[in-house]
Amino acid sequence: MKVVIALGGNALGKTPEEQLKLVKKTVIPIVDLIEEGNEVILAHGNGPQVGMINKGMQAVNMPFPECGAMSQGYIGYHLQNAIKNELMDRGINKNVVTLITQVEVDKDDPGFADPSKPIGEFMSKEQADKLAKENGYQMVEDSGRGYRRVVPSPKPVDIAEKDVVNQLVNNDNIVITVGGGGIPVIKNAGYHGVPAVIDKDFASAKLAELVNADALCILTAVDHVAIRFGKPDQEDLKEVSVARMKRLAKENHFAKGSMLPKVEASIAFVEATDKVAIIASLEHAKEALAFKTGTIIKKQ
Amino acid sequence: MKVVIALGGNALGKTPEEQLKLVKKTVIPIVDLIEEGNEVILAHGNGPQVGMINKGMQAVNMPFPECGAMSQGYIGYHLQNAIKNELMDRGINKNVVTLITQVEVDKDDPGFADPSKPIGEFMSKEQADKLAKENGYQMVEDSGRGYRRVVPSPKPVDIAEKDVVNQLVNNDNIVITVGGGGIPVIKNAGYHGVPAVIDKDFASAKLAELVNADALCILTAVDHVAIRFGKPDQEDLKEVSVARMKRLAKENHFAKGSMLPKVEASIAFVEATDKVAIIASLEHAKEALAFKTGTIIKKQ
Repeated sequence: MKVVIALGGNALGKTPEEQLKLVKKTVIPIVDLIEEGNEVILAHGNGPQVGMINKGMQAVNMPFPECGAMSQGYIGYHLQNAIKNELMDRGINKNVVTLITQVEVDKDDPGFADPSKPIGEFMSKEQADKLAKENGYQMVEDSGRGYRRVVPSPKPVDIAEKDVVNQLVNNDNIVITVGGGGIPVIKNAGYHGVPAVIDKDFASAKLAELVNADALCILTAVDHVAIRFGKPDQEDLKEVSVARMKRLAKENHFAKGSMLPKVEASIAFVEATDKVAIIASLEHAKEALAFKTGTIIKKQ
Repeated sequence: MKVVIALGGNALGKTPEEQLKLVKKTVIPIVDLIEEGNEVILAHGNGPQVGMINKGMQAVNMPFPECGAMSQGYIGYHLQNAIKNELMDRGINKNVVTLITQVEVDKDDPGFADPSKPIGEFMSKEQADKLAKENGYQMVEDSGRGYRRVVPSPKPVDIAEKDVVNQLVNNDNIVITVGGGGIPVIKNAGYHGVPAVIDKDFASAKLAELVNADALCILTAVDHVAIRFGKPDQEDLKEVSVARMKRLAKENHFAKGSMLPKVEASIAFVEATDKVAIIASLEHAKEALAFKTGTIIKKQ
């Protein structure tokens, strides 16, 4: 089975030291999938990492797309190193590689009119006003904890390097791509980086569509998507049609910025391809791909 | 002609803003080579960039191999973006991609016994002593300007991702790889990052050998390697045998840390392959590959 795995930020560490240690464990279920014969394409989040990089590189005014590129190098290196080592340890001879990946967004995406994704540190109103004036940043008051920069979160429409991803996947290599949702670019006489955050689940869904994957598998901290979570009548969703999933989303069953984008990305992939999307835990990824656990979203 | 181009740090900018602007010009002679039908594999330095990243990420103790991975993402993104845009502008349909690349070094390399490559900022003796004690860093007094951390500069022996590079090159893609000489790793039940700097010219020579390139082309700020530079009897070297180049190197004609590694890397490639190495300026890369300018190093 050709499968795009979207790895959540929770599977990576908060500090470089923690991450280097944690990825060694994180990759085990992924290498299990590879060992079983699946063609794995790996995408991953970068929230805490790109925040850390953005903060560190503030003094040199590192633009946000470049911070994303740096996070792809940083996280990609750890993942590719750990997967390759685990493969070698099991005597499996396969190449693993990270591609620096630009993801195209539409310059007319409504997201650009309404920047809402907070990035970087909290600061005082004075600091925020200064950055807004000097750098043209959009700043908002965030949860009573201070001011933060916000950037747009447009939807992915294409992947600049999709041909290379396809070549490598069809040639039996393990590819790590669209890290952090990809470096957001708009196309206008060439590709141009824009300060934005593409949701990594949407980027993974677009990737899965473009590589003609059999399944999109979004890994998270829980085994199933649930509705009425924590209530006596909580329901763990097992196999769900797109129609029901859309209805549940509309009824606000899923947390914005957490489970909702996973559900919406799954719906987008299934609707575009008639294939299957799975939301499951990293620990049970193998069982989920055998349809034994996880939430499985299908057309019908 | 299949050619590995080693791009010097001088072709990139000092700040992110400057680099983004400068790469647009830098890639023009490289795209000229692609347009002429050459198969181009691009390597590049990262001295100023990794220094900047290392400084910015000091507060989170980002290890040095990870800083290198970040610089590969940062510089690779700029180069791949600019090359692709220039190709599209000329109506050439080719993929351009940056690979996060680990370069293997020998754990018994004599370089490890004698760390000599300064990285990062100058500091006081007190600060240096503190870092030496707390992090085990090796610190040295550098040119009367203060103390700096030094890391080893071992020779490259292999490239972990060489198979993927070969696949992509043979499939007519433009590949950017071994950025900054590659992320240095030693092989010991898997690959493990080590704090070190692999000279980008040596990494490029190893790359050229491993992809079976017809030529290694090291680009620098001057049109020729010269001996007795600035003296009345200055000689610009045109076509030189390996034997003469070795003799000249032995006679200390080439500046350590500047022209010498370019000359030594060229010698290593020509001796290993019987192919040709060229040292030339970025501006005249096209003429150099037609053997009309530059210093051309051949077996005989």
